[in-house]
Amino acid sequence: MKALVFDNTLKLEQNYPNPTVKNNEVLIKTSMVGICNTDYEITLGYMGYKGVLGHEFVGVVENVGADVDKNLIGKRVVGEINCACNSCPTCYQNLQRHCPNRSTLGIWQKDGCFSEYFTLPVENVLPISENVDDITATFTEPLAAAYEIIEQIHFKPTDKVAILGDGKLGLCISLVFSAMNIDFTHIGKHEEKLTISKKNGAKTMLLEEITDKERKSFDVVIEATGSTGGFETSASLVKPRGILVLKSTIVAREGLNLASIVVDEITIQGSRCGQFKPILRLLENKKIDVTPLVSAIYELDDFENAFKKNSEKGTLKVLVKF
Amino acid sequence: MKALVFDNTLKLEQNYPNPTVKNNEVLIKTSMVGICNTDYEITLGYMGYKGVLGHEFVGVVENVGADVDKNLIGKRVVGEINCACNSCPTCYQNLQRHCPNRSTLGIWQKDGCFSEYFTLPVENVLPISENVDDITATFTEPLAAAYEIIEQIHFKPTDKVAILGDGKLGLCISLVFSAMNIDFTHIGKHEEKLTISKKNGAKTMLLEEITDKERKSFDVVIEATGSTGGFETSASLVKPRGILVLKSTIVAREGLNLASIVVDEITIQGSRCGQFKPILRLLENKKIDVTPLVSAIYELDDFENAFKKNSEKGTLKVLVKF
Repeated sequence: MKALVFDNTLKLEQNYPNPTVKNNEVLIKTSMVGICNTDYEITLGYMGYKGVLGHEFVGVVENVGADVDKNLIGKRVVGEINCACNSCPTCYQNLQRHCPNRSTLGIWQKDGCFSEYFTLPVENVLPISENVDDITATFTEPLAAAYEIIEQIHFKPTDKVAILGDGKLGLCISLVFSAMNIDFTHIGKHEEKLTISKKNGAKTMLLEEITDKERKSFDVVIEATGSTGGFETSASLVKPRGILVLKSTIVAREGLNLASIVVDEITIQGSRCGQFKPILRLLENKKIDVTPLVSAIYELDDFENAFKKNSEKGTLKVLVKF
Repeated sequence: MKALVFDNTLKLEQNYPNPTVKNNEVLIKTSMVGICNTDYEITLGYMGYKGVLGHEFVGVVENVGADVDKNLIGKRVVGEINCACNSCPTCYQNLQRHCPNRSTLGIWQKDGCFSEYFTLPVENVLPISENVDDITATFTEPLAAAYEIIEQIHFKPTDKVAILGDGKLGLCISLVFSAMNIDFTHIGKHEEKLTISKKNGAKTMLLEEITDKERKSFDVVIEATGSTGGFETSASLVKPRGILVLKSTIVAREGLNLASIVVDEITIQGSRCGQFKPILRLLENKKIDVTPLVSAIYELDDFENAFKKNSEKGTLKVLVKF
C-alpha cells in the first residue's frame, strides 16, 4: 500500500506492508487526513518518531480482529489516537490518554493514518453520523484537543476569557468556545483570521490593540501562539490568581521565565489531547462549521505540495484526500 | 534611629529618620527580625528596591495614628507585609496580597523592619498571644507563606505529596504540612535537615534515593529548592494531571522547559505570601516547633556577620535581636 513514511526524510512509499489486525483492533481504509503541526515537527525530529505519519483522519472500517463485533465493518469512523494498555492505575482512572504504556497514532510507536490502511484498537474507534461530512470529521481530533480545556477547567459563565493566537489551534479553540457559549476575546495578528471568530459571535482584538486596560484582567487566558513572546503576552493578560492554559509543546520546549507566575500566583494548566464524544455531539448537532479553516485539499501523491502549503504563512488546515 | 539600609550597598545607618505614623498606621518598636532569602536577593538587585530591608518581625506597638484604637499601644504584634489600597476590585475580592497598588514591607516602596521603628497599616497588624515567644513569632511570615499552599490547593487525605528541598523554605512547608496532617515525603540532600521533618512524623528520602518507582507518582509536588535542576526533578515526580507548586521566584526567573507540563497535563501553581491568622492558630496551639530551624541569633550592630552566616551553606534561619 501507499504510505507517507518519515525516516529522517519524508517519503511516499508505494509498497509499504499492509498492517496486520490484532484481535482487538479494526483495520481502517483511510478517506481523509489532516496535517497537524505535530506532523511537521516530527519531520524536524520531535519525539524521535520514525514510521507512518498522521493522526487526524476519517475512514471506513475495512475489517476487524477476532474479538471485535463484525457489525463495525463498513462504518465510517474517527478515532482517538492514544492506544492505552487498559490495565494500569492510570487507565483504571479513565486517563487512557496518559497511560504510561501507551502508543500514539503516527507520533509514538504506532504507524499513523497517512497510508491507505491502518489499525486502531476498537475502543478508540467511534462511528460517525452521516450528517457529518468527511472534511468536518477530519477535524474531530484537533477540536477534541481544544475541548480538552473545557474538561480541565470549570469556566464560570461570568469568567473573562482570552485566546491568544489566531492560527489553526487558536481558531479550533475559538470554534469550540463559541459552541459552548463561553464569553471570550480572540486576540491575534490577522484581521482576516479573526473574522472567522467574529462570525461566530466572539469578540476579537488585534495584538497591537492591547492596552494596559487588558493587562492582568483575564480570569483565563489560552496560549495558542506557540511562541515565547506569545507566552509572555498571555501571562501578562492573566489576573492575579488566574489561569494560563499552555496548549503547545513548541513554546514550552524553549524555556520560559515564570517569575510573574509565582508573584501573581497564576495557575499554569498544561493541556493536550481530548476525548472525541463531546466533539462528535457538537458536530452532529451542527454547532461547529469548520469550512473557513480549510486552506487546501491535496491528493496523497501530491504530499510534497501539501506539506509545502502547510508550512506557508497564513495557511490554516491542509487536508489530504485518499 | 538605627536602620539597615540597602542603597547599592548594605549599610547600618545610625541616624536614619524616624518614620512618621499615618492616621491608619501603627508605629512598631522592633524586637526581632528574621533574614529571608528575599533580603539577600534584594542586595543582589531583586525588585530594584532601595530602602530599609526586612519583612519578618515581631515587635511592640509604640504608638498609633489618629484613626487607630489606642488600646493597641503596648501590644506584641506580628504583621502582614503587603500594604493594600483596600479600594480596588482585587482588594474587594479579599486578595489584598495581590492589590496592584500595594507596597510591600522592605521589598517594594515601603521601608522594612530592619530598623528600631517602622510602621504598618493597622489592618496588617495582629497581636500575638503571650505563649508565643519572640523567636517563634518571627517565623509567622515564612510559615504563612508555606500555609498559602494549603489555601490554594485542596489536599485530599489520600493524596501522595512530596516536598523537594530541605532548606528553610522546604522545612517551613514541612512543619506546616505535619501540623496539618498531610501525608508527605520530604526529599532533600541533607540527612541532618531531613531529620527535623522526620521528628515531626514525615517520611524522608535523600535525592539520590529517588528511583523510577517515584517518577510520575505524586499527586502534588512542592518545588522548594529554588534551582532549575530541582524544578526538573519536581516535574518528573508529578503524575499526569498532578500539581506542581512553584514556591520560589529564583528558579522561575531562569527560564524553564515546560514540554512535559503540556504532555502530562500538569498544573503548575505559583504560590507566594500567605495569611497570618491560620498560622497564629497553629503557633498558639503549640502545633509547630521552630527551634530546630534557628541557626544563629545576632545583634543588629553585628548585621555583617548575620548576613555572612545567612549566606553560608547549611545555614537555616538567622535572626537579629533588637
